[in-house]
Amino acid sequence: MNKVLPRLEVCLSPALLHLYDTEGAVVVIIDVFRATSTIAAALYNNAKAVIPVASIEECIALGNSIAGSVTAGERNGHIVEGLQYGNSPSEYTRDFISGRTLVLTTTNGTRLLHMVKGADAIITGSFLNLGSVCEFLLKENKNVLLACAAWKDRFNLEDTLFAGAVVSRLAAAFDINCDSARAALVLHHSMGDRQPIDMLRDSSHYRRLAAYGLEEDMAYCASIDLHPVVPVLKGHELVIDRSTH
Amino acid sequence: MNKVLPRLEVCLSPALLHLYDTEGAVVVIIDVFRATSTIAAALYNNAKAVIPVASIEECIALGNSIAGSVTAGERNGHIVEGLQYGNSPSEYTRDFISGRTLVLTTTNGTRLLHMVKGADAIITGSFLNLGSVCEFLLKENKNVLLACAAWKDRFNLEDTLFAGAVVSRLAAAFDINCDSARAALVLHHSMGDRQPIDMLRDSSHYRRLAAYGLEEDMAYCASIDLHPVVPVLKGHELVIDRSTH
Repeated sequence: MNKVLPRLEVCLSPALLHLYDTEGAVVVIIDVFRATSTIAAALYNNAKAVIPVASIEECIALGNSIAGSVTAGERNGHIVEGLQYGNSPSEYTRDFISGRTLVLTTTNGTRLLHMVKGADAIITGSFLNLGSVCEFLLKENKNVLLACAAWKDRFNLEDTLFAGAVVSRLAAAFDINCDSARAALVLHHSMGDRQPIDMLRDSSHYRRLAAYGLEEDMAYCASIDLHPVVPVLKGHELVIDRSTH
Repeated sequence: MNKVLPRLEVCLSPALLHLYDTEGAVVVIIDVFRATSTIAAALYNNAKAVIPVASIEECIALGNSIAGSVTAGERNGHIVEGLQYGNSPSEYTRDFISGRTLVLTTTNGTRLLHMVKGADAIITGSFLNLGSVCEFLLKENKNVLLACAAWKDRFNLEDTLFAGAVVSRLAAAFDINCDSARAALVLHHSMGDRQPIDMLRDSSHYRRLAAYGLEEDMAYCASIDLHPVVPVLKGHELVIDRSTH
């Protein structure tokens, strides 16, 4: 008896999303530097919810309408004028964020999240919650699209490296006939005994953010399983999936 | 004295081409399976020119208007009705193609070639002419975009693997700050002592074409430097660049 395995594919850029059928699938939004890392940190530290929004105006307006909320967002490595906090996962400690709603505006990850249509579930993934994401995908046992947020639609190494880590853990349970997944897996294997950050130091995004002094932030984002939660989109809010916790 | 090196970037899909500035650059169109392999074979074997066209109708009309020309093209592994030959590089032996114009219609490579705007030169690359392409790029010493034809806009392994081979040979002479180029290089290095075909047997396009019995054809396309020419676009024709030969 051959069991038909669900399909797993990797989309390398939002500009390629239209090529994939997300109907009924679980879509994992990946924006390692740094939106989906910050989302994992905030929810792990007991934030009530994270609301991802595309524009600064929307972020401010929503922040004003939700009591005790926190507005956050950066552009070019600086906190946006009118917002309260930045896009560093380490900012969102339990002391600070517990019980509060984080309204977060980011350039790449948020946009991609809003582009996905017809999915059965939309979750967010980063090295900080790698293991939990994989568990969730195995449990759901549906078609999966790992969707890299990229950088202004350009392929990036960090999101693809994370996708490769997921592919390597799920290869036996999914039908994978997708060259992007194969390439992501090769990237993952090429790390050998090194840590993700060792490979990511030579990447466009690392160089860009290092110029703002954000090296420690990126090392944090590249840490595996520090925040084992599954952020899942319910309406317009990301909350912790309670079925696996 | 620091010399400013020209830039080298890799575009993984025609759907991402708009993200790159091709003004004044040398653009290498890459469609390993099989358009740019067939182009290298035909020109090496003394074809007068190769005219890449997008549609079957255009192919037939142009074939009728050029004395002694050959029309060629496949869809789904079969020669298109109304055309004379297929898309296998091995079909275009010197005996057959010498002195004739090949009018070729393909799905991915041709479309990409026609999308490029403002380039200083457009050439085609494949494993069959890897060394010649690299020599040409070194000699020109201009910004380079390695443009993968992909498969219906989806990332593919064979074109990216070829791009990685070029990156590995040119790394010292170009400024490379492009994650696609980094990933292509990792793919290239992951081959180790193996041949490209050993890596490509597990790829979507190989599987698709193998189902049509085209394994030998793909092994041919993955052979390095069998046809050392540089096909360069002059008007609407690809001809051999004579400056390097």
